[in-house]
Formats: sequence, C-alpha cells, structure tokens
Amino acid sequence: MRAEIISIGTEIMLGEITDTNAAFIASKLPQFGIDLLYVTQVGDDVARLQEVIARAWQRSDLVFTTGGLGPTEDDLTRECVAAVLGEQMTVDAEQEAHLRQWFAQRTREFPERNLKQATTIPSCRVLPNPRGTAPGWWVQRDGHVIVVMPGPPAEMTHMWEREVDPELERRSTAVLVSRTLKTSGLGEGSVDERLGDLWKSANPYLGIYARRDGVHVRISAKAPTREEAWALIVPVEQEVRRILGPAIWGVDDDSLAAGVGKLLRDAGLTLGVMESATGGAIADAITDGEGSTEYFLGSLVTYATQAKIDLGVPGGVVFTHGVISEATAEAMARAARERLGSDVGLGITGIAGGAEMEGQPPGTMHIAVTDGDRMLYRQYAYYQGREAAKRRAVTESLNLLRSFLQSE
Amino acid sequence: MRAEIISIGTEIMLGEITDTNAAFIASKLPQFGIDLLYVTQVGDDVARLQEVIARAWQRSDLVFTTGGLGPTEDDLTRECVAAVLGEQMTVDAEQEAHLRQWFAQRTREFPERNLKQATTIPSCRVLPNPRGTAPGWWVQRDGHVIVVMPGPPAEMTHMWEREVDPELERRSTAVLVSRTLKTSGLGEGSVDERLGDLWKSANPYLGIYARRDGVHVRISAKAPTREEAWALIVPVEQEVRRILGPAIWGVDDDSLAAGVGKLLRDAGLTLGVMESATGGAIADAITDGEGSTEYFLGSLVTYATQAKIDLGVPGGVVFTHGVISEATAEAMARAARERLGSDVGLGITGIAGGAEMEGQPPGTMHIAVTDGDRMLYRQYAYYQGREAAKRRAVTESLNLLRSFLQSE
Repeated sequence: MRAEIISIGTEIMLGEITDTNAAFIASKLPQFGIDLLYVTQVGDDVARLQEVIARAWQRSDLVFTTGGLGPTEDDLTRECVAAVLGEQMTVDAEQEAHLRQWFAQRTREFPERNLKQATTIPSCRVLPNPRGTAPGWWVQRDGHVIVVMPGPPAEMTHMWEREVDPELERRSTAVLVSRTLKTSGLGEGSVDERLGDLWKSANPYLGIYARRDGVHVRISAKAPTREEAWALIVPVEQEVRRILGPAIWGVDDDSLAAGVGKLLRDAGLTLGVMESATGGAIADAITDGEGSTEYFLGSLVTYATQAKIDLGVPGGVVFTHGVISEATAEAMARAARERLGSDVGLGITGIAGGAEMEGQPPGTMHIAVTDGDRMLYRQYAYYQGREAAKRRAVTESLNLLRSFLQSE
Repeated sequence: MRAEIISIGTEIMLGEITDTNAAFIASKLPQFGIDLLYVTQVGDDVARLQEVIARAWQRSDLVFTTGGLGPTEDDLTRECVAAVLGEQMTVDAEQEAHLRQWFAQRTREFPERNLKQATTIPSCRVLPNPRGTAPGWWVQRDGHVIVVMPGPPAEMTHMWEREVDPELERRSTAVLVSRTLKTSGLGEGSVDERLGDLWKSANPYLGIYARRDGVHVRISAKAPTREEAWALIVPVEQEVRRILGPAIWGVDDDSLAAGVGKLLRDAGLTLGVMESATGGAIADAITDGEGSTEYFLGSLVTYATQAKIDLGVPGGVVFTHGVISEATAEAMARAARERLGSDVGLGITGIAGGAEMEGQPPGTMHIAVTDGDRMLYRQYAYYQGREAAKRRAVTESLNLLRSFLQSE
C-alpha cells in the first residue's frame, strides 16, 4: 500500500513552526506494512494545494493531510479536496448541531464562519475531534483514501489514536518489524564495509544510520504476521552481532545513559562525576533516566579552575600539567569519588569552545574513569561547534564508563 | 524568486527522525524576499528522488536539498541531481586530497567508498564542509539553482551560514528583516491585548508566538534594502518596548541563559549553582553560551541527599524541613556561593520524576537565589514528564536569576 502525507499551512512554509505531524504519522505506518513514499508541505494556496492533492490522489492509495481545517478564509483543505474529487460540500446537520453545542458549552457565541467546519462531501465519513472544532474526514472512492485531519498536534494525534489507527489496523495485511542495534567507536563507512553483503537483501532490509550516540544498524522485515517478520530478522541480527560484537551497546530505544545505568545497578556501584567542559551535560544525560537516584550521587561541575582545586584537584597537578590534561582528568575522577563518596568516579576536562587552549585544538577532551584501583583514560579531539562538542563529549564519557564497567 | 526544499532520507519516511532542516531553511528565506512554495520529503529511492528533483528543477528558480550525501550505497542525491541535469560525475582531485587528509588527520583509514563524496559535475561549485566528509554542491544552469547540502543539522546549518547565506545575500533584491523581542511572565493573550493596534499593520508585520522560554513578539518588514526595512522596524520596536518594558528579556537569537549571562557580566558578578532535581541541566544551559567562563564558576549537582550535606547544606535543615523545601533550596543557594566562592548563588531542589515526594506533587520545584544579603525564592509545580519538568525548571531558575539581578 502506497501512502503519502501532505502537511498544510503557510506558517510551516515560513519556518515559524516545525512540522512534527508528518514524522508522527510516518512513524505509525510501518507497523501496518504501509510504504510512505512522499511527504509534501505546502502553504494555504488554492492552486498549489489542489495540484498537490490531485497528484497524491492519483499516485497513492492512501493520503493523509493535516492542517487547513480552521474556520478562517485561508483554511482551504476541505474546499480543495472537494474540488479535486469534483464533489459538493454541504453542511451536515448533525455536525452543525455538534459544533454549536461545542461553543454553547464554553458559553461562547457561535461565529457563523465556523459553519464550514460542519461541512462534508458524499464520499466522506466524519472523524470526530473531541479536542477541537474541526472534525476530520475519511474520504474513500475508487480504491483511494484521503484522511483529512486538523493541524494542531494535540488534536491530530488524538484523532489518530482514536479513529485512524484502529481503521488501519482493520485493513492491514502485512506488518513491518524492525530491530535497531546501536554501536559506538565505528564510523558509518566502516560499519557499512564490515557488514558487506548483508546489505544486498531487500527483506529483511538493513539500514545504517549515523546518530549522535553512534552508528545505528536497523534490520527491518516485512511479513504477513509479526512472528514471520521476526523469523526473518533473528538470523540477520545474530550475524550482525557476530560481526560488530562489542561495538554494540544497546538495542531499539536504549539510551547510552540508561545502558550505563543498568551496568552500575547490576554491579551495585554508585557514580560520581567531576566535569568542566561538558558543563553539567553528563549529569543531565544520566538524570534523564528514571531511577538514576539508585546509582548516581552527583556531579561537580567545576567550570572555573579554582573550583576544581577547591573541590579536590591538587593545585600542583593543574600547575604542572595544565587544566586540559590527562593528569587533571585523572585527578578530577579521583576527586569526584572522594568528594561525592562514590564507588566510581569520572573526570572530564577539555575545550568546548572554538578557541585553542594550552596548545590543544578546539574539541579536545581528556576523560578518565577510576574505582580507586583501576584508571581508564581516553583523549580525543572533535569540533563541530560548542553544543555538538559537549554532546559528543557526553557520548564519549558514557562509552568510556561502559568499557570500564564491562571490563570489571 | 520561487524556491522549494527537498529533504532526503529513508529514516525521515520511517518517522525515525523529524526533518528540522526544512524548517531551518524555510525560516532563513523570507529575509531575502524568497518565496518558499513546496517542501518535499522523499526516501533514498532513485526513481522517486529523480522525479522529485526533476519537478523541482522545472517549476522552481531555487532548490535546496539536504541529505543523501553519505558514503553508503543508499546515499543517492549526487547521482540523482547529475542524472536530472544529464551531467557526468567525476572525482575532483582537490576534493579527494581534502577528503583523504580529513581521514588522515583523524588517523582513520580511508574507506574507498567515501571517494564518491569527492565527486562533482560541470555545473557545480563545491561548498566546503569543515564539519564532515560530504561537501555541498552549488549547481547553477539555465537560470535555475540547486543547492545540495548534507543532512546532519550541525553540518548543514554551518554550511548555510558560511556558504549559502552570503551567496543569497549577494543575489537578493528585496529583503525582509525581522526583530524578535522575547518576553517572560506574560501570556500570549495578554501580550496580544497590550499591543492592540500595532497588530493591524501589514508592513511592518507583527507576529506573536508562544515559545518554551516565553512569548516572542516578532516585527518583520519588507523593503528593497536592509536599511529601509530597519527604518520601518525601529519605531515599532520602540513602541513595543515602551508597552512591554521589563517583560522583555532578550532579542532575536538571545537565549535566556545568555541574557542572564549578560546581566552578570555587566554587573561584574560571578554565579555558582547547587542543583539536584535539574541534574546539571541549569549548568548545561548556562555553559552553552560562549564566554560563560567569565561569570559562571560551576554547579554542584547534588543528586544524593548526602552529597547536599557533604557540600554545605546543614543536615539539620534537611532533617527539619525536608529535602524538597524552601529552607533546603535557600541553604543550597548559600552553600553554592560558599563552596564555589561566587557572588551569587542559586539553589534548586524538587521532583523531576513522576512520583509524589514528601507529600508534594510531581514537578514541584523550590528555587532560591542569594548574594549573601538578599534572598529571592520561588516555588511552583508543573509536570508533563521528566525531561519537560527539568526543562521548565531551567527556564524558571534563569527567570528568577534575571529578576534578582534586575532588581539589584
């Protein structure tokens, strides 16, 4: 089944809002075995809107539109769908009553122009919108379907869950299941090369994606049932795990921080951090996970050098080796353990800004992890701007922690 | 000038990532008087990609593509642009040398398949990509332009600012200039009411938008030159400033954290933080701003209660008033000042998780700011999930700091 999405609204074309509806709908379609082939965003313009809807109606079995259902003159989606199908819009008595009641309940006078929100066309079944005044349309004719939904995400997603999702469930003949394996320490190109021939297969299909937390390998399989789809995925997953081995740190929705948290919890260890260049981003990532109180004691964000010294980094170390150094990172890891009384301490110092410091390039990071006995250290330099440098440092720090805990 | 955007990538069609590039580009075009007519998202499929590019090339003066420039076999944007224009791709010696050097610098072996990232076509001028291995293309022929850019936002936005924006600036005939005034403490409706008649004008045009960090008022003016556009904006800006006064905390790209940073810098004051529920998110936000080293000494992320006590919160206060209390927040603000030796201290304690604690609802936050003399305190409860609770707490904390510094 070939589907496409049309997101409608001039505010999207002006970049005033990001169209999140399309991504929401797109994420819901694979499970029904529906192929999304195109997403189009277009403004509130009769000619362009009709052109886009007409093309979609011709080339796709299933079309989803969001937006343009408001009461104002520049809300044109209904009018354009009716025009493309050559059908007449008429006010539906039941919808009008419902709409007038909606306003009455809120003790607001009914603006006559809202009446257009009560219109329907012959091929259309109305989709209730309990969260707003614009009902949706399920339009079906000649083997094609157009699902017309409101633009506000709260209204659209609610309508999706209550009306559209169940209907698609009833119609679905094939399902698509996928398993994502998350790696670190390898580039997109080298993962691609290592997996070599696994690539060629169409079903299951292998996708390789560079993400902030490393390269993800996704195995997707399409089949009549969930079970049959999984049967296609399992052997490929085993092969990918055999090839990439320890580079794989998680699956599907796992976050790197949650993975590290699990290792700490399982080992019954607590963590303390002293971070400077990352400015609290490591603690922030760790505490995004529910239950982090079990293993995370805190982080000393010692942005100023004096703060590092006040909180336990020997002044001599900083003076002799510099702030941006292996010795300081290791001293910070020790200080974090001592000041926070944790089993494991992580220290990171580096350059998040765009300027060279102590003769080292922007993005240089020195990271150390210790349990008071072993000390694991890593250094790298990577710069794509301040925020990206911080994010990358968080990923590298969590990866170093992972290696440390796994080699325990 | 008619423009359109093509966002390329199967992961977009699967709803795995939201396409933020299109919104970024869309928001940049009005200032050059460029009308964006269509945005199309399409997967990594030769036939569909060529069809979409061909249609765009015909109907638009200016086409922007993002994505599909990676080294893997399913990165097809270059190939499809070349095919649509009927031009031959060849490896550019200079680009190849540059690419091999990129890998050498990172002491990574050069995967031969990355070579396709060094290809060009006759009509194309290469756009350097210092943040990645995929250079962009500025393709110009027969009065049409296609700008081919990489998909990763960090790479695309950097290329935009350094290469594309200046080129569009040179070509622009009419410009649209806008000034955004960022407020806090006022609702969308009340800003709307206060600004009253300013609303009516079409040029300059006034837009009011509710954002995470408060209500934004944007004044946009279109004119042949930047100067003439500004001449239209200035009087309106003065009027808006007169009406909204101190509710305005920043302009344009200012972040709340940067606004607070400016107040600190201007007053010659340093800041120290002790945060628990926000788990480092406050320090993270503050250190996203360049130059934060001037005024930010650090943050003590005391996630565990014992860590609060070890770092200066009197055990008696916690015992008597509870961890989630005004007294503890104030003690944390004092401890932050003392331990970090800062002029101003901020303390925040609360509940980021979904469970009630000490008889207080999820999302409860107690925030205190002190300079050792004055103490400003605020409490609120807001819960829409863990990460949203943290984000909201960061905004509230920065706003409290702002009030504190402004009332100095």
